This record gives sequence, C-alpha cells and structure tokens, in this order.
Amino acid sequence: MEKKGPFTCKELKSMTPGTQVWGKFLILEKNQRRSKDGREIINLKIGDASDEIDVVVWDNCSITGELENGTLIGLLGDMGNYNNRAQVTARRIKVLDEDITPYIKKPDIDIDSLIIEFREMMAAISDPYIKALLEKIFTEETREEFFKSTAAKKVHHNYPGGLLEHTISVTRLCRDAAVNYPMVNQDLLLAGALLHDIGKMDEYEMKVVADYTVEGKLVGHIILGVERINTAINDIRRESGEFPVKLELMIKHMILSHHGSLEFGSPVIPLFPEAFLLHMMDNLDAKMFVFCNKVNDEDGDEHFTNYDNFFGQQFFKYRYTLDEEETGCL
Amino acid sequence: MEKKGPFTCKELKSMTPGTQVWGKFLILEKNQRRSKDGREIINLKIGDASDEIDVVVWDNCSITGELENGTLIGLLGDMGNYNNRAQVTARRIKVLDEDITPYIKKPDIDIDSLIIEFREMMAAISDPYIKALLEKIFTEETREEFFKSTAAKKVHHNYPGGLLEHTISVTRLCRDAAVNYPMVNQDLLLAGALLHDIGKMDEYEMKVVADYTVEGKLVGHIILGVERINTAINDIRRESGEFPVKLELMIKHMILSHHGSLEFGSPVIPLFPEAFLLHMMDNLDAKMFVFCNKVNDEDGDEHFTNYDNFFGQQFFKYRYTLDEEETGCL
Amino acid sequence: MEKKGPFTCKELKSMTPGTQVWGKFLILEKNQRRSKDGREIINLKIGDASDEIDVVVWDNCSITGELENGTLIGLLGDMGNYNNRAQVTARRIKVLDEDITPYIKKPDIDIDSLIIEFREMMAAISDPYIKALLEKIFTEETREEFFKSTAAKKVHHNYPGGLLEHTISVTRLCRDAAVNYPMVNQDLLLAGALLHDIGKMDEYEMKVVADYTVEGKLVGHIILGVERINTAINDIRRESGEFPVKLELMIKHMILSHHGSLEFGSPVIPLFPEAFLLHMMDNLDAKMFVFCNKVNDEDGDEHFTNYDNFFGQQFFKYRYTLDEEETGCL
Amino acid sequence: MEKKGPFTCKELKSMTPGTQVWGKFLILEKNQRRSKDGREIINLKIGDASDEIDVVVWDNCSITGELENGTLIGLLGDMGNYNNRAQVTARRIKVLDEDITPYIKKPDIDIDSLIIEFREMMAAISDPYIKALLEKIFTEETREEFFKSTAAKKVHHNYPGGLLEHTISVTRLCRDAAVNYPMVNQDLLLAGALLHDIGKMDEYEMKVVADYTVEGKLVGHIILGVERINTAINDIRRESGEFPVKLELMIKHMILSHHGSLEFGSPVIPLFPEAFLLHMMDNLDAKMFVFCNKVNDEDGDEHFTNYDNFFGQQFFKYRYTLDEEETGCL
Amino acid sequence: MEKKGPFTCKELKSMTPGTQVWGKFLILEKNQRRSKDGREIINLKIGDASDEIDVVVWDNCSITGELENGTLIGLLGDMGNYNNRAQVTARRIKVLDEDITPYIKKPDIDIDSLIIEFREMMAAISDPYIKALLEKIFTEETREEFFKSTAAKKVHHNYPGGLLEHTISVTRLCRDAAVNYPMVNQDLLLAGALLHDIGKMDEYEMKVVADYTVEGKLVGHIILGVERINTAINDIRRESGEFPVKLELMIKHMILSHHGSLEFGSPVIPLFPEAFLLHMMDNLDAKMFVFCNKVNDEDGDEHFTNYDNFFGQQFFKYRYTLDEEETGCL
Amino acid sequence: MEKKGPFTCKELKSMTPGTQVWGKFLILEKNQRRSKDGREIINLKIGDASDEIDVVVWDNCSITGELENGTLIGLLGDMGNYNNRAQVTARRIKVLDEDITPYIKKPDIDIDSLIIEFREMMAAISDPYIKALLEKIFTEETREEFFKSTAAKKVHHNYPGGLLEHTISVTRLCRDAAVNYPMVNQDLLLAGALLHDIGKMDEYEMKVVADYTVEGKLVGHIILGVERINTAINDIRRESGEFPVKLELMIKHMILSHHGSLEFGSPVIPLFPEAFLLHMMDNLDAKMFVFCNKVNDEDGDEHFTNYDNFFGQQFFKYRYTLDEEETGCL
Repeated sequence: MEKKGPFTCKELKSMTPGTQVWGKFLILEKNQRRSKDGREIINLKIGDASDEIDVVVWDNCSITGELENGTLIGLLGDMGNYNNRAQVTARRIKVLDEDITPYIKKPDIDIDSLIIEFREMMAAISDPYIKALLEKIFTEETREEFFKSTAAKKVHHNYPGGLLEHTISVTRLCRDAAVNYPMVNQDLLLAGALLHDIGKMDEYEMKVVADYTVEGKLVGHIILGVERINTAINDIRRESGEFPVKLELMIKHMILSHHGSLEFGSPVIPLFPEAFLLHMMDNLDAKMFVFCNKVNDEDGDEHFTNYDNFFGQQFFKYRYTLDEEETGCL
Repeated sequence: MEKKGPFTCKELKSMTPGTQVWGKFLILEKNQRRSKDGREIINLKIGDASDEIDVVVWDNCSITGELENGTLIGLLGDMGNYNNRAQVTARRIKVLDEDITPYIKKPDIDIDSLIIEFREMMAAISDPYIKALLEKIFTEETREEFFKSTAAKKVHHNYPGGLLEHTISVTRLCRDAAVNYPMVNQDLLLAGALLHDIGKMDEYEMKVVADYTVEGKLVGHIILGVERINTAINDIRRESGEFPVKLELMIKHMILSHHGSLEFGSPVIPLFPEAFLLHMMDNLDAKMFVFCNKVNDEDGDEHFTNYDNFFGQQFFKYRYTLDEEETGCL
Repeated sequence: MEKKGPFTCKELKSMTPGTQVWGKFLILEKNQRRSKDGREIINLKIGDASDEIDVVVWDNCSITGELENGTLIGLLGDMGNYNNRAQVTARRIKVLDEDITPYIKKPDIDIDSLIIEFREMMAAISDPYIKALLEKIFTEETREEFFKSTAAKKVHHNYPGGLLEHTISVTRLCRDAAVNYPMVNQDLLLAGALLHDIGKMDEYEMKVVADYTVEGKLVGHIILGVERINTAINDIRRESGEFPVKLELMIKHMILSHHGSLEFGSPVIPLFPEAFLLHMMDNLDAKMFVFCNKVNDEDGDEHFTNYDNFFGQQFFKYRYTLDEEETGCL
Repeated sequence: MEKKGPFTCKELKSMTPGTQVWGKFLILEKNQRRSKDGREIINLKIGDASDEIDVVVWDNCSITGELENGTLIGLLGDMGNYNNRAQVTARRIKVLDEDITPYIKKPDIDIDSLIIEFREMMAAISDPYIKALLEKIFTEETREEFFKSTAAKKVHHNYPGGLLEHTISVTRLCRDAAVNYPMVNQDLLLAGALLHDIGKMDEYEMKVVADYTVEGKLVGHIILGVERINTAINDIRRESGEFPVKLELMIKHMILSHHGSLEFGSPVIPLFPEAFLLHMMDNLDAKMFVFCNKVNDEDGDEHFTNYDNFFGQQFFKYRYTLDEEETGCL
Repeated sequence: MEKKGPFTCKELKSMTPGTQVWGKFLILEKNQRRSKDGREIINLKIGDASDEIDVVVWDNCSITGELENGTLIGLLGDMGNYNNRAQVTARRIKVLDEDITPYIKKPDIDIDSLIIEFREMMAAISDPYIKALLEKIFTEETREEFFKSTAAKKVHHNYPGGLLEHTISVTRLCRDAAVNYPMVNQDLLLAGALLHDIGKMDEYEMKVVADYTVEGKLVGHIILGVERINTAINDIRRESGEFPVKLELMIKHMILSHHGSLEFGSPVIPLFPEAFLLHMMDNLDAKMFVFCNKVNDEDGDEHFTNYDNFFGQQFFKYRYTLDEEETGCL
Repeated sequence: MEKKGPFTCKELKSMTPGTQVWGKFLILEKNQRRSKDGREIINLKIGDASDEIDVVVWDNCSITGELENGTLIGLLGDMGNYNNRAQVTARRIKVLDEDITPYIKKPDIDIDSLIIEFREMMAAISDPYIKALLEKIFTEETREEFFKSTAAKKVHHNYPGGLLEHTISVTRLCRDAAVNYPMVNQDLLLAGALLHDIGKMDEYEMKVVADYTVEGKLVGHIILGVERINTAINDIRRESGEFPVKLELMIKHMILSHHGSLEFGSPVIPLFPEAFLLHMMDNLDAKMFVFCNKVNDEDGDEHFTNYDNFFGQQFFKYRYTLDEEETGCL
C-alpha cells in the first residue's frame, strides 16, 4: 500500500480496517441521530465516480462547513467495518467549493462517443414522418437534458448519462436483431427504441442522486413519454398539417407496451413485431447491466454473490476463460 | 297465448318450440356457411330493445333485400331449439326502411332523467378550476356523443346510454360514500367519477353494436381519457393562463389508477383516498350490474345459474322476501 | 414551546431531540435485555389516546412500582432519536393507580352517537325473522361487549369501539349504495352488514391491546360469527319454532363470503347481490381507514409516505384544496 | 362376439360400430332438442354399475313409458360413434319397474368389509372424550346414511359408498403414517380422519347421481361438517357437562384446514402435526383414485391419456412389470 | 380463375365455395365416424408445403388404396365451408406412390444456406475444449438427423429443418447482442446457443408430423440435452483425459436454465450473463416467429387477428410503410 | 441449578442471564468486526449435538489457538441476551484437539438401526433389474458416504445422517401407503423412494455444516441424481447388456418429478401413480419434520410459535393429551 492517498471509494472498500484514509467525495445521503449514551452521531453515505461507502461522524470530529446532500467534501478518517460492511469513521471533514463533475458516477462508456452514435442513429432514419417526429422531440435543448438524464433511481443505469447509454444499447440491440426478421420496419423500430424511455426525463429529478418527481409517481414515465409524443405530433400537425394517424398510434403503442405485460406497468401488451422486439431488448439490456455488474460483487463467497432480494436469486461470479488450468474435480 | 304478434325477442325466448312467430328486429351478427349436404345456410343473431336471439336461414327461406349488420328486418319463422338454446328457423325475411331507434337496447332507467342528474352533478361542483375543466371537456357537442356512448362491448352497460348510466351511478356511489370520510375532497372526487371512463368514447365505435376502434386496442380508454384531459387543460392554460399543476396530476392519476391494479390495466395504483374510492365504486357498479341481471337468467336450475366462465362462478338466483312461506327443511 | 407538560404521545413525536418531557402513558409492550457492555436495558412501547412512542430505560433510571403491560405510568425523560424514530430516554418512572380509560385509544367519532346510530339501524329493519335474529344475537349483554370490541389487532380500527365504528360505517355504506340497485333486499343487507364481523368478539381478547385468542387462530372470526348465528337461530327455533331455512343459509353465506375470495379466507365467494355489496363495502371501509390515516404520516417526504410493506405501496399525502395558490410548474 | 346380450355399459364401449346391442340401464341425464331439419331428438346419458354411455333417440324410436332421470330402462339399439365417442342409436326403449340397486355404481371394494373396518377404527379409539364425540355423531341413523353417501359429484369416489371408501382409506393412511412420528396423537388424528368429510352428507343429495344441495353451495361441506361437530359437542355438554375446550378447537381446526390452503377453500391452514398429516392424506387419496383410474382410460394413445383439463396434465398409462421383454431402444 | 389445377393448400383456402378442385397432398390426420343418419364419414386433415386444410369423405366417394397418416394422395373434390373454416368435400381419392418430399413443410429460408452458416459458426469457435465438445456432439451422423429435426410439435418452427432454423437464428441473435457486453465469453455463448435445444432430437419423432416420444414426455428435452452433453464429455475424458469441470457445469447450466424460470420447466434459473442472454434470445426467436406469421392470418378483421388462446392476445396485422397515404382520422 | 457444567447448548438457552457457564462446542460461523467505539469484536455461532447459540467475543477475552469454522473449543463465559435471543459473552476460549464427532448434530433415531432398515428395504426388492440398479448405485463406498450425508442445508434433516433418515422415512411411508392401491408396483416405488434424493450427495459438501457445491447450485440435486442413475445403467448395460428402456425412463421420471410441480423445481410433473405417491410422501416427511420440531420452539407465546417467514405461518405448540384437566372456557 505505497500510495498514501487521495483514495477513491472503490479503493477504500478494499483497505484494511484501521488504516488512515483521505479523499474527496460527494455527500449522497445524510442522517442525524443521538447514540444510546447521548452523543450526537451523523451517518453519511458518500460517493465518487468509482463507488459509494458509509461514513460515521461522531461528535469529536472536526467539521468545517455545512454538511448537506450534494456537497463535495474533503474527508480524513479511519477505515472500519460495521455489520460486515466497510465504513469510514471521520476525523476531519471540510466542505469544498470545487467543481463536483469529476465525482459524479458516469457510464463506463465515453459519453461523447455515445452522442455520436445517437446522431448516427437519428441520421439513419429515412421515413420522413418518423424523422420529423424525432427531430421535433429531440431539439437541441431536449438533447442536452436527455444526455444528462438517468435511466433509473436504483437497479440499472442510475447515473447522469445512464438514460443515453441504455437508449443507445437498446437501439443497437433492436437494429441488429431485426436483420433476422425481414418483415420488421426498421425506421419504426428505431423510433420506438430511441423514444421508449423519453418519459424518464420527467420521472426523475437529477440532482446529485436521482429522485422521483411527483408526476413520476402519480403518472409514471410511460404515460409521460406518450405526452411528449402527443405534444410533438400536435406541433407537427399544426405546422405542416400531416402525420399518419396509424403511425401515431403504433409509436404510442410501442411506448405504452414496452414493459411487456400489465403487471409490469404497461397498460397494453405488445401487439405487433416491432413492439414486441423493443420490449424484449429493453428488458435484456436492463438485466444484462445487473448480471455484468454482479460478477464484480465483493459480497458473497468465491463463486456466488449473496442472495439478491430484488432479483430473487444469487449470481455466479466465476468467469470461464481459456487459460483456466483446472480440469480435475472441483 | 292469445297474442299473435308482433313479438319481442324476450317473448320469443319463452315460447314453445314449433310455434309460428313474427316481429321486427335488428341484425346484430351475420355468418354464412354451407351445410354438410351442400345447402347454403345463413346464421343471424338478431335483437331488439328487450333481448337477443339466434336465427337460422335455410336456402328455402324467402328473402327480400340485403341482409347486413345493423339492418332492420321483418321476420316470420318457427320457434325451435338448438343445443339447448332458443332459435328461430326463418321462413320469410324482409328488409325494412324504418327508424331503428326503438329497436336498440337502452338503459333500464330513463335517459332524460339521467341527463338531468348529470347536469345537477356538474352544477354541484364549486371549485373553479375543476368546474372549468369539466365545462371544457363536456361541451354541448361532446355531451351529445357522451350520452349515446356505451360503457363496454360486452359484460356491463353495453348499449347506447350505458356510459352515461354507469357514470351517473359511480358518481352517486362516490358522493354518498364520501360522507363517511370527512377528509375527502368532494369536488375532486366528483370530477374523477364523471371523467373516469371518458376515454371509452374513443375506445368504441357505436354502430348498432359496439366495436373496438384501432386506438381502443392499441392505446386503451385509460390513456385516451388522459389525452382528453390534456387537451382540455392545455386549452384552459392557453386561454386563461391558469390550472394548478398538482390538481392536474391528481385528476390524471385518478383516471390512470381507476382499474385499481396493474394486472387490470392501470399503469399506476391509487395513491390517495379519492382515487381509491373511485376505483372501488367503479368496480362495484360494473359487477352489481352483472349480479342483478344474473338473477333473471333463464339458464341453470331453480336456484343457481350455470357456471359463468368469465366471472368464474355460478350465481344464486333465489330472492328472499318476506312473504316467503317455507320454514321447514329445503 | 411554551407548554411545559404534561405532553401526549402525539406531542412528543414533534419535539426537538434533547428536550425534557413528561406525561402519563400506558405500557403497551415491554422487553428486557442486556446491552453489549453488560448494562440492563428495558425497552417499552408506551401509548395514550393520541399515539404510541418508544422508550428506553437504562439502569440509572429511577423506577417506582412494577412495569407491566397495561400499567399506567408517570414518565419523565429526554426526547431522543434512534434509527430515525422518535424515542424517549427515561429518567424517572412511577407506576400510577388511576383509571386508565382516558389513555386508551378511541374512535375519532363519539361512541355514544355510534351507539344511537346502531339502535336506529336495528329499528329500521322490518322483516320479522331478520329482526328476531338480530335481537337474539344483540342482547344487552352482548351489545355491551360488542361496543368495546376491536375490529383488528393492527391495520384498521384496532382499538376498543373500533368494531362498532367499522360496523356502523359498513352498514351505512351498504344502505346508501343499495339505493342504486332496486332489486337489493335492504333488510337482508343490513343484517349481513351488522353481523359480518360479529365473530371478531371471539377472535380477539381486548386487554389494553388486542390479542388473538386460541379460537381466533384455530377457527377464525368468520366461522366464529357463523357459530353465533347458529346458536341464535337454534334458540329462535326452539322457542318459537320458525326461521326460514333459505334466509338462514343466505345470512350465513354473507358472513362466510364477506372477504370476497378464497385466498382472503372466505371458504365461499359471494353468490348473490347483497353478499357481493357487503364484501365490497367491508373492503372499502377497512382500506379508507388506512388511506385517511396515511395522509398524516410523519414518515416519508413532503409528498409521499415511506413504502408500506403491508399494503405494498406508498401513499400521496398532499391534499388539494381551493386556496391552493400554486399554478406554475412543480 | 358369441355373447348376444344383455351387455353392460363397459362392454358396449368396446363393441364395433354397427353391432346391434341391448341391456338394462339407468337414465342419468336427459336433454331434448329439435334437429336442424326439424326432427325431435332426445339425448340420454345412461349408466350401470360398470360405466356410462351416450344414447341418441330419434323420433322413429319406439318408446314405452316416461323417460326421466333415475328411471331404469330396457334398451335395444345400434352401436355408433359421434365425435369419436361411443354412442348408441336407440331403436326401442321400455321403462322397467324393477329394483335399480344392481345398476348403481359402487366402490370396487366390498361395502360390508368397509363397514367392518369402520367399526374397528371406532373401537380403536381410547380417549373417552374423542370416543364420546364420535359415538354422538355416528348414531345408527347417521351411519346408515353415511355408508350410502358420495364423496364428490365428479372427479373421485362419486357414487354411493364413495364417502365411506374415501374416509376409510384416508384414516388408514393417517394411522400408518403416524407410526413415523411418535409425537402424533393417534386418537386425535383418527377422529379428524373419520370426521373430515362428514359435511359432505349435507353438501350432496344422492338421488341416482349426486347433486349439490343449496347449503352445499352457499355454505360448503367444510362448514357443514363443523356444524355437525358443534351440535354433537353441545349435546355432550348438555348431557354430561364435559368436553375439553382445546380438544374441541383442535378437531374443528382439523376439519376447517383439511383442504390445506385458503385458495382450496380452507379458511385456516393446518397449524399442528395431526391437521397437516390429515390434509396430506386426504389430498393423496383423492388424487391416487384418479391416477389409478386413468391407467385404464380408453382415450389417448398407447402410452398416454388425452390431456385432462381438470388436472392440467396427461397421464402415463403403461404399467411396468417384470415379464416385460423389451430391453432395446423404444 | 384461369388456372385449373393442380392447386396447393394455400390456394384452396382462398377459393370460392362450390368450385371443383384437385391436387396432391399428404394425409396428416385421419378420423372415422358415423353420421347421425348412419352414414360412414372420414375426416382428414391434409397438407402440403404451403398449408393445411380439412377434407370430409362421405361414403359415396371413390377411394383407391388405403388412407393412412403420412400417405400421399391425389384428391378431386368441391370447395366448401364448415363452421366458417374452409373444407373440401372429396369426390375421388387415389393413393399415390411418389416421393413425398416436395409436399412436406419447410423453413422459409433455404436449408443449404442454413447448413453453411451452421458450419461457419462451428468454425468460429476458438476455445479448444468447447470446440472439442461441439465436434464430439455434432458428428456427421448427428448433423444429418439434426438438420431434419423439428423445433416443436406446434407453435413455432414445427417442421423438418425447423430446429436448425431456430438454432441458427438464436445463435445469430446471441452473437450480435454480445457485442454490447464485452464481458461475455463468445465461445461459451455460442456453444450454449448451438446446443440449447439439442434434446429436441430425442423429444420428438419426426414422421410426416412431429410427435412426442415417450422420453420426450417422461424426461423432457432439457434433460435429454444434458444427457447428450454428458455422453460427449465422458467420451472426451475417456479419450483425451481432459475437460474443465466448471466449463462442463456452465454449459449444462445454460441448457438447464434456458427456459428462464421454474414455471416454464427449467429446474434452475440463469445465474450468469451468457445463460441469461441465451434464455432471452431463445424466447425472442420463438415469439417473433409467431408475431411475424400472425400478420398474414386470414382470420380476424382488417386490423386484428382473432383472439389467440395460447398466447392470450390478439395481434395487430396492419403494416406501416412509407407509401401509406392516409393522414386524416381513422 | 445444582449442575455447574459442562453445559450443552440446549441447557445454555434456558439459563438466567448473568450466570457463568462453560462447555465444549464447535464453531459453526465466525464474523469479525469493529465496534462503533473502535474495539475489535468477534461474533461466533457455536453448536453441539443438542442445539446452537450465539457468542460475542470482545477484545478483553483470553483466546488460545486459532478460531475457525469447524474448530472444537472449550468456552467459559456469561449468559446474556441480545435482541431477545440468548447470547454468551466469552471470557476464555481454548481451541481443543479432540474428536469432534460427539459434538455434531445427529438424527434423533439411532443411525445403526436406520442402516439395518435400509438393508432390509434393499433386500425386499425382487425385480432383478431394479435390484441390479440399486446394487450398482449403492456400492459399499457410496453407502458409507450416503449414510453421512445431509438432506438439506437448513429447514429439515440438515445434519450428517439426515439424508438416510429422510430416505428411510419416505420409503416406509410409500411402502405402507401403497397397500391401499393394489395397482402400484412396489419394487418400482421403493426404488424411486430410495433413490429420490441421491443427488443431494453431490449438491452439498458436508464439512461441519452443510454447504452447497458449485454443481449443487448450477445443476441441482434433481439432475445430479439422474446423472448417477445414468452412470449406473450405462455400467449395467456395458457389463450385462440389459436394462429395460421404459423402466429406465420411469425411474428417471420419478426422480425428476418428485418435487411435484415446475415451480418447485421439477422439470416434469408426476405422470403415473408411483411418481405421484413418491412426491406426496417426500413432501409429507419434510414438512412433518418441521411441524414436530416447532412444537418445542422456545420462541413465541404459550400456544403459538412466532410467525415463520419461510413457511408463511405460525405453529400451534399445545399438545392435547388425555390427562388434560381443563374443560371450561379458555
């Protein structure tokens, strides 16, 4: 352990309890309480681009500035362990007035290359009505916000850029799979894929961590997405006078049905090939995100993660590769 | 059997096989086929305001005019019975050029009194925003169409005026039940009740019998209803500049959640008291319609109807009343 | 915070950690344990007519008398907070020998007015058999106990008088809704509503808090209710010789089917209109109790309660009223 | 085909279409209708102790006497086949005035030996309270009726004596299995087993075929059984003054919980070992009845029966025995 | 209708009732029965590479040869219609002794190009253990049988070559999607995809139509597939002494889990990324086959197919394309 | 409390907090963490043949030797209580080098008598093929391992010898129940019963406590059992050339279907009587194990255990016996 810091959250998690550590982190959650023997305690969840970790702040910690969600801090403390989870006991905290961007979680993939791919996908559409709709929705202003949105509060792609990353991935999967089914209308499919989660821009507020908006909970991103499409088509009709009615219904149907079944929140189920393909690929990409991340889980034993209550299963972490030597019994 | 005709469908159903019958009826469904021995057969389902019945037309029947769905006919034939269901064998059919209105199924309750009650309910709302929204949606033109709409293709209130009848009933139930829960906002509740099935105007086409529209199947009446509310609120905001955002979300939420759970097609579940009350009363009224009609079912035995596959149960037809004499064993 | 006490539980919950507090409360639950460093700790749940709160008693607390469930105590302590829930750290506790009645949770509505309404409902029944049955069951002695019973251990109407409150509410809802369905036999419906939860008198023991009896768990209130009806009808038949058999079966059926489906513990499902209406109104009243209480929940954020595991949802706490100013964006 | 008749139903089913046949049978169901070309048709289901078969009666059939459910007839006709099911076309039918007993379906096992076994089981109980309860319920009169009752309308043990056969089998299974679990109270278990379906005496009316009674459908055999136990215990208490309360609750619980889960109509689930064991053995015996009968099904192919909608599966009919020669591939 | 024949099944289905028709077809199913008036009737289902159709054979039809499943016949008859389905009434049938190959249903895609693609996929695998396993399983002899196998009895890819077509399609989908998830081991994934339904070779017997084998029903294709892998790995280990144990378990796991959940027959659920991806793509390809075929369904109306009981939905048949003119309302 | 030790785990659980205790125990689980005030803490779960208990080890405890899972220790400490569960605070721990066998949990029944019964069951089989298969599988070596295996990780029979105990019990239950169903092939049934959980030998690793193997989780004991049967039948065929194919399929089917339904992990459901009987008895024995143990649960109140999340129910602990005095009200 030559390196003396600063450390990232990911590095902290693998350090020996007792080690002194320091670094710069964002406050993601803050809770205050009093210990059984009457001392003031603050529990923080802090994070950076690499990971998240818990911090406990006792009343003997020196604090400079106001601790609030979304604040960037410099932290000095000791690595510890509480209920088998890594935890830092803070000694000194200082609120920093720096650009927080480098500390926010990001897609693995470079955002700029995703934006280029997004533009190429838009350009690949030849149907003039579909093209017009996408242009009307993805104005420069909307794009800017879209590229910074999250695809979820938890579970998958839950960081700025996550919505773009997920959208590009689903669109790619749809485009490539469609080659197997010549009947599929590629332009219609691409439109559905690019627009399927557009309502998530209204479902979440992106501060430092995503949170549901009131309309996100009362109305939901599926209907919010349809409302954006409604507005755009109304504008097109008002301006140029033309948008095919059945195309309108089919695109709305693809948004409405993309969760695949009523019990997962789609008020209608997919009724034509493009809608079904979109639903499957949305589901695939969200779950593959989880599967691929679980492989690196520190919890669990050598071979399996702990049981995950949300997914109702464990995950197998072992990766078979050729240089594997073992050929005997386990 | 003094009366020699014309007979209503309801009367036909209770007549002895072999009797000669006649009357005026609407054609509700028509299917043509060839019998095993090569003869042309036409199967009709006909109906009037009282009920529906099956007709078989052999190639020796004299037919004047073109038999089509929605056509009014004069029919002379013989009562028969096929697979234990009443059926008329046609001898003579003549297409009539008369007003079909008297032959279309109607609510049990007088439509005009329902319309008066509808107006009173509208008048009872004092919140200006809610009042404005309802006025904007229920224009004279829309009311005219609304009063003729159906609440379903099958199952319950499936005839012109059925949507009004169901809407009034649900609104009454909500209004009366709310007295038990002082916290409930009556204006909000009434708005939700009056608007909850407004999307059914777009879900069905009302010819002589209701049929789904393409948007009814691809989008569904729940979302279609929200779109009508969107349009109205946009108009209000454009014209007068004001409509509370949270009120908008709550009314949309009431429409979206009125089926009560995801598996019944609501993309969100009821999250506040008015939304939950509306859901329960909608469900109650639809099913009470069925329970009350089942009591008069001719099928089944003295005490129970046949098993109904849609509802997954039999119904008990016996009605206890005081003049009941029996006090011994069954 | 001029007022210096005594405080109610509800008041305690809104006080600043660190404040000294005092008041009179009932002990609802008591658990003893030893802390990690070997000190004796007692955890209490205390309550009064307003609410419930947790208390921690360390070994340095001065205690006079024996702490037991159902005991009334005078308590002096400091407000604190543990795992984000309000908690009192006790300094002095004294067991009091006073009437505990004022400290027991009650219906919001005045019990006496409920009793008057109960009598009116009984008086409104004109069918002599049904009247006789209700009189036989609701003897003076039974009424006295019935008026003090609870409708549940947790969840809804879980306090003395709760069974009466729930019964009156369901009966009112049934009576008012029945106006929409002329076929419904009002006397039969009222009988079912007044009797539907009568078995809960045997299902729970009402000490200070409700607890299940052995027959409550082995047999259940639905069957226990039918047994009370059996006994009453046997008595009527023995005394006067007459009670219609089908009426007996229909009333039993209404009790047995009022949970609406097998998976909710009804061995038969509702088969006639009165039974179905009763089931729906029972369900409505139980859940509206929860919805209306959740609006005042202190947990959660400004708009939504925390996720409730029992109901599988969050609740929207915001109440729209006319004096609402906001019309802009959220 | 030397034998010229009379034939049993079972024999008819294996005869070549076109053969002339005759025999004596009971009418189990009768339906009348008119054919498409106007001829009167009667469809009968007839049966005897061996099996059931369909009969079609055209208007050219000679009929002596009144054809009604439960009537014994002499029938002459021709074997045929309709929709792949064996069917007799009647030529001559004569109503007979003979004892119908030999023609009613019976258990495979001799009823008298079952009755002896029932008595031995009763005698094996040593607990005086349990013994008293069983004696009080199984009076001579009740036994007589019990020995003639059916265990079901369809599916399993659906014939006079079937209830006894099923009860004995379940009691035997319970008794033998209990040896593995020393903690089990054998007397309590036997009581539960002997009484578990006693309510079926009230659920069905046994004419020639079983039919539901009104209380069977409105109340159900589980509650009807508990009512018989109530009556008996009340009598015991009135006469001798003593019956342990917890024993009463446990026996009722065993009856109430013997379907094992709420969705199969038990209002409570088994909570102690004897109740659980009884539930499992009741389920086992009912389904083994079906499995063993399915092996002889004529429908389906060499190895498998047709798909059975009620059980949601096919059944494998092949029986492996030692003299099996095949050892190669299938 | 210049063309006078021979006609294909597909052509027959669109012809006017009454037209005389002829052609060569395979007998797929045969049932014999007697009509109500005593005449012998044979019902056939016949088919060719294009489609299937029903035939009714009355006793006045001239028949040369023995009618049996799988026989090729020349048929002359009249087009008719029974219960709204096209049906041929046979006049003359002659059993033919010709090669039946041209009359058997085939994949849309050319089998030879599929075989070439299969070889390329095999060649693309570089991991020596995985390559060895695939070579061991896909011997020349197995390939020959594999290329002629069906992927199902009904529902999807249910014809010779269907298993190959489905396998190639799933493998393609997996390979292309994996590009999005760099962590995925392509060789492992391809092995799983190529082998996932290998057990179907043992589950079905391919005569003219597929039928389940006894092991298909008692053991199932998932386990039968694992047994083929077991045999191959045992052979490899016996011959060369080496196969990595974890690789063995992972490949077996992919076969076992490819139905995705226990209720669809997988005894384990997918636990690592390759297994999950394979499951999703298998599901996608099977259902896209259905969606794409449904678009051409003759049943239903202009926009929607009839309700499909197996899939629990209707399908939208309209295909949006650019030359679509309509822009007004529906 | 005369006795001064050594104590068993069972004895510890009933001792007063504060008492000094000592004894010899196995370490079953070990977790290390740091307390909030920075002290090192070790949490142990220890056990012996009688029960299990928690131990907390503070940094002031004297420890001799290395604490590891499976180690036998001598422990001196004080009884305490944490979160209402008994817990020992360790003062002195010494690792012991003794035979651990006496401290491992065992079946209640003597293993040797189970082994004798196992041999008798094997000897009772007369069918030569079935006998040969059992002999081939249960070699001396396999038996030795089989007799030491566990039937589960948790829930039931989860200790060395548990698999034998469960297997014998299921086989006995099957054998005795089969007497009621003469059609059942006893040899086939016994083979299925003796082999049904044979795959559990591969599913678990038995160290001191059972743990899943990788193949246990990726493949599962049901398939692992079929693989053992495959191997044995292959050996038999190679050596003697003969084993009936259908018998092979039926035995595999019994193993595969013994969980009874797809959602419980059987890829096929029982299709013949022996398979169904085996499934029911396996289920019965596993659950009776739980029911009988729950009666002795210390948790819960006088009559009922606490709610068990795994089984979704409480259990009634009261055992009715004749010397019961109570006859009044509860």
